[in-house]
Amino acid sequence: MQGWMGRAVEVDLTSGKSRSFALDPEMLRLFVGGRGLGARLLWDLVGPDVDPLSPENVLIFCTGPLTATAFQTSSRFSVSCKSPLTGTILDANSGGFWGMRLKRAGIDALIIRGRAVTPSCVEIGPGGVAVSNASHLWGMTVPETTQALDAKGRSVLCIGPAGEKLSRIAAIMNDGQRALGRGGPGAVMGSKNLKAITVEGDAKVEIADRERLRFVRYEASKQLTANPFTSQALPQFGTAAIINIVNVVGALPTRNFQESRFEQAEEISGESITDRFLVKKSACWSCPIACTRVTRTKTREGEGPEYETVWAFGADCGIADLEAITEANYLCNDLGLDAISTGATIACAMELAERGIIDSDLRFGRADLLLDAVRDIGYRRGIGDELAEGSLRFARRHDAAEYSMTVKGLEMPAYDPRGMQGQGLLYATSNRGACHTRGNMLGPEIVGLPKLVPRLQVQGKAGIVALHQNAAAAIDSLVVCKFVNMAVADEFLARALTAVTGVTYSTAELLRAGERIWNLERLYNLREGFSRIDDTLPRRLLEEPVTDGPNKGWVSHLPEMLDEYYRWRAWDDDGVPPAGKLAELGLQEMETPPGRIAEKARR
Amino acid sequence: MQGWMGRAVEVDLTSGKSRSFALDPEMLRLFVGGRGLGARLLWDLVGPDVDPLSPENVLIFCTGPLTATAFQTSSRFSVSCKSPLTGTILDANSGGFWGMRLKRAGIDALIIRGRAVTPSCVEIGPGGVAVSNASHLWGMTVPETTQALDAKGRSVLCIGPAGEKLSRIAAIMNDGQRALGRGGPGAVMGSKNLKAITVEGDAKVEIADRERLRFVRYEASKQLTANPFTSQALPQFGTAAIINIVNVVGALPTRNFQESRFEQAEEISGESITDRFLVKKSACWSCPIACTRVTRTKTREGEGPEYETVWAFGADCGIADLEAITEANYLCNDLGLDAISTGATIACAMELAERGIIDSDLRFGRADLLLDAVRDIGYRRGIGDELAEGSLRFARRHDAAEYSMTVKGLEMPAYDPRGMQGQGLLYATSNRGACHTRGNMLGPEIVGLPKLVPRLQVQGKAGIVALHQNAAAAIDSLVVCKFVNMAVADEFLARALTAVTGVTYSTAELLRAGERIWNLERLYNLREGFSRIDDTLPRRLLEEPVTDGPNKGWVSHLPEMLDEYYRWRAWDDDGVPPAGKLAELGLQEMETPPGRIAEKARR
Repeated sequence: MQGWMGRAVEVDLTSGKSRSFALDPEMLRLFVGGRGLGARLLWDLVGPDVDPLSPENVLIFCTGPLTATAFQTSSRFSVSCKSPLTGTILDANSGGFWGMRLKRAGIDALIIRGRAVTPSCVEIGPGGVAVSNASHLWGMTVPETTQALDAKGRSVLCIGPAGEKLSRIAAIMNDGQRALGRGGPGAVMGSKNLKAITVEGDAKVEIADRERLRFVRYEASKQLTANPFTSQALPQFGTAAIINIVNVVGALPTRNFQESRFEQAEEISGESITDRFLVKKSACWSCPIACTRVTRTKTREGEGPEYETVWAFGADCGIADLEAITEANYLCNDLGLDAISTGATIACAMELAERGIIDSDLRFGRADLLLDAVRDIGYRRGIGDELAEGSLRFARRHDAAEYSMTVKGLEMPAYDPRGMQGQGLLYATSNRGACHTRGNMLGPEIVGLPKLVPRLQVQGKAGIVALHQNAAAAIDSLVVCKFVNMAVADEFLARALTAVTGVTYSTAELLRAGERIWNLERLYNLREGFSRIDDTLPRRLLEEPVTDGPNKGWVSHLPEMLDEYYRWRAWDDDGVPPAGKLAELGLQEMETPPGRIAEKARR
Repeated sequence: MQGWMGRAVEVDLTSGKSRSFALDPEMLRLFVGGRGLGARLLWDLVGPDVDPLSPENVLIFCTGPLTATAFQTSSRFSVSCKSPLTGTILDANSGGFWGMRLKRAGIDALIIRGRAVTPSCVEIGPGGVAVSNASHLWGMTVPETTQALDAKGRSVLCIGPAGEKLSRIAAIMNDGQRALGRGGPGAVMGSKNLKAITVEGDAKVEIADRERLRFVRYEASKQLTANPFTSQALPQFGTAAIINIVNVVGALPTRNFQESRFEQAEEISGESITDRFLVKKSACWSCPIACTRVTRTKTREGEGPEYETVWAFGADCGIADLEAITEANYLCNDLGLDAISTGATIACAMELAERGIIDSDLRFGRADLLLDAVRDIGYRRGIGDELAEGSLRFARRHDAAEYSMTVKGLEMPAYDPRGMQGQGLLYATSNRGACHTRGNMLGPEIVGLPKLVPRLQVQGKAGIVALHQNAAAAIDSLVVCKFVNMAVADEFLARALTAVTGVTYSTAELLRAGERIWNLERLYNLREGFSRIDDTLPRRLLEEPVTDGPNKGWVSHLPEMLDEYYRWRAWDDDGVPPAGKLAELGLQEMETPPGRIAEKARR
């Protein structure tokens, strides 16, 4: 690569036309790629008046400067849009093969606009970009669609029935079983009548300094091999390796966060998955870690379940039947559903049923009802039609919003904020709603990577959370997998970026780019009408102390941490980045107008 | 080892008698060993009425549970006493071979009390402990003393002329050229008429679970090899590898902290040492890193110089003559002087001379006067007699205390707090006075290990400093080398401890032990009359902004960080740990009495 260049392709589904254009090199330097580039493009393309499920929303698939290079875990790509679940800015990223091929088709940003009249497929190949009719695919599951479009050298990204039916917890799936999961991007794709995007691409990715990249890769490789988390826990037991660890410290939310330890955790652990169902391990393109599980139950074979899925359908639903959990996971992949939100929404329904708020047979522990519940959500049948809207809209409908375990409408992942104080702050301030991938505190608060921080410490936690958020934003923009960063220090990511682009990028600059992206996302949400009051947690976590175990008596001390967090970020007391901060970050043109934005009816 | 046992030997130099006794296992569990054990014993043995240079002060040499085991860098041991330089609690630690032999003589704590009538030597051998006459050694340099006492299987620890002459910046030296350097422990040894301690010991150290220790060692070994700091920078260039790095970011204090970049840094860098003087690298017992430099100048061969020494005699004195610096380092080792305090005190004298406050030829850059200055300090001749008291007492005598770059009377090491905000807080709160080994922020603030934190960040820095302080206290108690922890996470230190003692110790417990030790040291200093006003930095750093370079305009923002720091530690606004905190740490018996301690005339 000579300098830092990038190319965007824009497809307008309304007109069926597409165009290609060069990306501004200065924009690339400031926002890197992936999530950062997506956020920057979205800032211009999708303003506050746009309904997420209208044709005016856009889907922006971005690769990053490291995508499809020799650097470890460089298979990844991201999608950005306004979220139909939360109303916030959204990005989600995924591994597999599709992103690598998009990059090899020479595309750094694929912008999908408008709405097709009939179900359609975008095909990217050597001859360019074409929009084809996909009416025959409409209604198909993800494996069916993938198989129908499968061809040598081609990768498939698509939605399942859930996305078609505009479920706000619908994922976009790629390579059959990988998910751009959270926040409902599948519904945005469905709203555009877009069933699938296929990519063929085998152009060589340009690297400014191949020798240097090879050396950085070698250094990173040593570190991945030396680190027990990336070299032992993940390959041996997959992400579910941490079920027992998180449970022991009392941070595994159980029965819709009513408790924080699951008495049958052992039965749903990574060790149990390995014992009972593991066929072989597998990996994304270019990944030496190989945390993917290929599993087989009595009825079928598939990938997963991951830690989050095991938790969502397991502990959170009070279910210890690993076979049912694993099949629920397969079903989510088939139907194109976010497994976290699906499981957590069912858990919410279980609590409402137990409390007599809704009339349903659902109860904690009812593994026998699990698969039907997932299927009903995917096809929007019966109660599934309500649940497909996510737990907040569902619970609100029954006047029981306090039982929706969400932040900004996004279901919380598998860590109890009462036992991991930093994780609570992370959830509350995450720009796409409760999220464990915007700087997960599992590393510092539980496994001690890169350094152990007391879980229950409140004072001084904000800075550590913000640092991890900035790093995550940078990593999501490169794009590489966050597991790499459990072993390989940020420095090597900066060095890899420098080798690829030929533009010197220090570690500090890379983390500064992460901070820039975080602030831009914040500005986006402020423009949408979000404010300090949205940086909060469900009342349960703030008011109901943990009843037993190592965190007995603890609630989340969010309010103190939030003040400290705004100070750390040099935001004002309302959580608004002031002009000076924006200028420092090169975001002066995005300054929030003095009167700010009128509060919108977002939900 | 069956359970956690330890043995102390107490030698009373006044009576010439010694005794041996078992250490309380609960005390070992709480305070681990090394620095922690030394602090705990000192709490009982040396109260606030004791003059550090009186016979009532004690010297406590402690090994730790990992000393002389197969774990990496386990050669280390520590000495604890009340400091004659600062009046605070003091510990210093060292590698080499002496500590390993002390442990193999079956000793976890060697307590030296009283004062011998004539110069004496303590000899520890297979037959027990003997006190012998050392009048013939008095006046000898460190190499002469070491050679005189040298024998196969025996290691020598001693003082040089500086310690004999009660210089408050005198080190205790072991194995010829290794220093227990800071805070003047050499003077305490001198005040006891104790010239040397020899140790023979070859008993096998008991390990509860050898197989487990071997495995932890193997894991640590992979991490040390994978980490570029421990596998490349340190072995290739020694500790001075960081001279250029620290200079580039504008944190290399120059000319007594008047500036923070040295224009001739390249000439005194680790790279230059390697090019010009390196004979071979060397290592402490059981250390795979091997950062020791064996060097040769035109006149002689020796070990060093280390980063701190290169800085103290180099940048801090405005001197770029690497040969003079290296020989000044040899001289410090010969005479038994702390190289940091010696160089920094000379730098202070240079500034006073330049300002016309003292009448002396000393000037920044006067390499030709360097060796004589060091020699004069060691033998207390001429101006050296004043300088041997350290820069604070020296500058005060000339009514110019503001030019002493010290905290609590200890000379600051080679990092400018204006360009590393966390380092300034670290210096201000360090329990033995300004210190870079109580949780050095070089890792987080400059080299990005374990994770990069913005150097100039003020808000939120306190927690990170406190975490590193706690970890350092734990590491100093095990005792291992802090460089190990640049690559090997705390978890593996806890696992090694568990393997050796057979007593399960989690990472969180180990860091909690570090916090306990830190609080105990704080209580010791409070009992001595130290208070919040002593947690400060020289006025220059708080009021004189950096004039150029990347930190232009910055001063240390200590006051804000200090408030935050006390909050993080759950101390009150005066920096006193409240009863609740002490109870939580198992320190309830050390509670500060309500009226607190009358302010003492400490200096």
